[in-house]
Amino acid sequence: MTAHGSEPLRGLLTTEPVLTTAGVGLFADALRDQAVPVTEVDWQPPMPGTERELAAVLADPRRAEANALAAQRMTASTAALTDVVPAREALGLEKGTFLHAGPPLSWDRASGPMKGALIGAVLFEGLAETPEEAERDLASGAYDLEPCHHRDAVGPMAGVVSSSMWLYELHDEVHDNTSWCSLNEGLGKVLRYGAYGPEVIDRLHWMTKVLGPLLRQAVRSVGPIDITAIIAQMLQMGDEGHNRNRAGSLMLLRELLPGLITAEGSSTDIAEAVRFSGANEHFFLNLGMPAAKLATLAAHGIPGSTIVTTMARNGTDFGIRVSGTGDQWFTGPALTPEGLFLGDYGPEDANPDIGDSAITETGGFGGFAMAAAPAIVKFVGGDVPFALQATQRMYEITQAEHPMFQVPILEFRGTPIGIDVTKVVRTGILPQINTGMAGAVAGTGQVGAGLVTPPAECFPAALSALAREVA
Amino acid sequence: MTAHGSEPLRGLLTTEPVLTTAGVGLFADALRDQAVPVTEVDWQPPMPGTERELAAVLADPRRAEANALAAQRMTASTAALTDVVPAREALGLEKGTFLHAGPPLSWDRASGPMKGALIGAVLFEGLAETPEEAERDLASGAYDLEPCHHRDAVGPMAGVVSSSMWLYELHDEVHDNTSWCSLNEGLGKVLRYGAYGPEVIDRLHWMTKVLGPLLRQAVRSVGPIDITAIIAQMLQMGDEGHNRNRAGSLMLLRELLPGLITAEGSSTDIAEAVRFSGANEHFFLNLGMPAAKLATLAAHGIPGSTIVTTMARNGTDFGIRVSGTGDQWFTGPALTPEGLFLGDYGPEDANPDIGDSAITETGGFGGFAMAAAPAIVKFVGGDVPFALQATQRMYEITQAEHPMFQVPILEFRGTPIGIDVTKVVRTGILPQINTGMAGAVAGTGQVGAGLVTPPAECFPAALSALAREVA
Repeated sequence: MTAHGSEPLRGLLTTEPVLTTAGVGLFADALRDQAVPVTEVDWQPPMPGTERELAAVLADPRRAEANALAAQRMTASTAALTDVVPAREALGLEKGTFLHAGPPLSWDRASGPMKGALIGAVLFEGLAETPEEAERDLASGAYDLEPCHHRDAVGPMAGVVSSSMWLYELHDEVHDNTSWCSLNEGLGKVLRYGAYGPEVIDRLHWMTKVLGPLLRQAVRSVGPIDITAIIAQMLQMGDEGHNRNRAGSLMLLRELLPGLITAEGSSTDIAEAVRFSGANEHFFLNLGMPAAKLATLAAHGIPGSTIVTTMARNGTDFGIRVSGTGDQWFTGPALTPEGLFLGDYGPEDANPDIGDSAITETGGFGGFAMAAAPAIVKFVGGDVPFALQATQRMYEITQAEHPMFQVPILEFRGTPIGIDVTKVVRTGILPQINTGMAGAVAGTGQVGAGLVTPPAECFPAALSALAREVA
Repeated sequence: MTAHGSEPLRGLLTTEPVLTTAGVGLFADALRDQAVPVTEVDWQPPMPGTERELAAVLADPRRAEANALAAQRMTASTAALTDVVPAREALGLEKGTFLHAGPPLSWDRASGPMKGALIGAVLFEGLAETPEEAERDLASGAYDLEPCHHRDAVGPMAGVVSSSMWLYELHDEVHDNTSWCSLNEGLGKVLRYGAYGPEVIDRLHWMTKVLGPLLRQAVRSVGPIDITAIIAQMLQMGDEGHNRNRAGSLMLLRELLPGLITAEGSSTDIAEAVRFSGANEHFFLNLGMPAAKLATLAAHGIPGSTIVTTMARNGTDFGIRVSGTGDQWFTGPALTPEGLFLGDYGPEDANPDIGDSAITETGGFGGFAMAAAPAIVKFVGGDVPFALQATQRMYEITQAEHPMFQVPILEFRGTPIGIDVTKVVRTGILPQINTGMAGAVAGTGQVGAGLVTPPAECFPAALSALAREVA
């Protein structure tokens, strides 16, 4: 190798080099990839005004052990698909109560896609005849709204769940927890993106009358299905489990098919259920999410732990919850993702960040595993080096590396898992999320997919609460 | 960044660097990944004794255009699965004629796994009662042996095809070529690895009586199936298409299933066909191979072209054929792969390289696309940097980059395709193949998987023939 003044560089190649780098992370990574020992000094100032509370929380003698326990529970959790059940049975959800994504929300503060999805759900439940009537009743406070997370459930995008909808039921046998998630409707004009036209409502009825019961038969006949194992596999197959679920969906389909094709039912219904499921590249998302919910649930409620156990958005607010502070939400205004748009849509059409699907990042995959899924940049934007860096950067703010979720291109390093509030506040590095984008106007549907982070303010807010727990 | 004598290095980071590297390819790659302009001087001497013929062939005025045409045909070829048919119908193959992998071979020079597979095929066809009788008849010359490639067919490992076996039929509609490949038997003790016990023969009978006819019904009902599109997709899903076919197999299954589950036949047979196909992670290999055969067939027979159109091994010899020299084989002794072994097997148990599956590398995937499939190193050995380098190195000896077969981690660069004999001879870089390993003793089956190259001497031999064509 020759360069400007070649001797010092040549020395690098003939002796065993030891380097110190600061700031130029990519260069350090390139060296590390070549097995050159590198000491990185990646110092940035903590978030402003957090110094005193940060010192207090970092000095909490419970913290190290509590966080180690949280990470141990997260990575030891299991997730088996055990059943498919209507929400009224699974959650005791009454007609007139509607679950939604993200932290608590009132109708008057709801965004377009959230309002659209709630209108659709009211219509689907037969509680109103027209969208106008549904909207009037929702605005009058006739119905109860509640976060999915408050029932240990999760829902992508608007995440609206009503009494008659069917849910996947997943069980963590290590910690004896159960979680639920709605069935995926496919892409485009769908309820979760805020669309509520007749085709959306008709599809929901078909999913309730035909798909749910057939999936229940299939799962009861072939299940339980090990969802954790599928996540581990899909990360070796170019998926990251949030916006890329191609391999996961195919593997889930392979597991379900023997049970689906032998289910009792009309052959037309079965063929349509197989076609509908096989055509949906996001089929698996609604299994990955409750699996991540089980992982984070297992780590929740450990006194002194600064590990994030929920990240969720309702389209207006982004909220996080932390293991050591229980069920308290720390919120800030949801940011609007940047990314790629469908058809003629553009940035001005996008609603702020929405959905419980950031539970995947909270559970150590999704945006945290983008290095495993470089092809995702064609869907959410960014480029391949960005995808690699996104995962690399998340190691800076997490407690552990997942023993089963491995990234081949990083030489099978485990994915970063267990976001530590103190590390986020100290480094200013925010969790990397990738996400679908809903149209801001109710009824639009999906307009694109992109990249986003939580608003920074959630983390100092959580830190303050953690500091109060110490004091 | 600081290092031994920091100033020259610091200069690299504050000015726009222009570097020249030689030999240390990884370092150059790392720089290039960071968008630093690099001029690489990767000079190695040509293979010894080839200088005069190399000069003659490089000076051939037909060469540039002929190679461009070869690459254009290779990458423009299509491959659709159109039918599943018995070899006797597809190829007019008579009972008593046996096709095999690689270049032409006589019984006396055949290796253990090739002998085992031929014995098994004779038993399967009912031409002998015992392995001893089959072996005696084979040794006496009672049967005709012929390379699969001479019938535009390909077979993995021993590649033995007999009259009653069923074959996939693939068609290239752009060049109106047809190619065939046997059905995959799964892993372990199987005919293609030289096993011929009763369970092997029973499975072949079941494949002939049940699986073949059901797959024919399925393909005729849902086909034609675009195999080229599946290869393009699987490279985005961590497969390279030779020894890693997980995503490809799932996608093929998804296409075939609607036709399989509605096929006429006993539900037990259909369920077993679905189970057998779904359980086989190498199910797709036998579709990727004939697709690659169609690509290389389209490029064959162009006067003046130095592009390799066949690489194949019979377990004794490795043979190549070149576009500009027609059907002539250039052979050398097959090398023994290095890699990972199953159970208690070790290097001493491995047979030399065998099979037509190196057609995948000839067609621009397999070992040439290992950068797309870093997880394969857990199966064939090597490490992740090796997988990345393998693909990078193949650009040095190929004519083109495939427009559809892209490697996400290389920022969607097309796979290297079209091995140029002159580039191999000039650089000494040999094509990178990954492969299953058969036990050297007839009847053993698979012992492992690993990495291998052709013996170097094939290429100077081909060069000599090309030089004679010029003269």
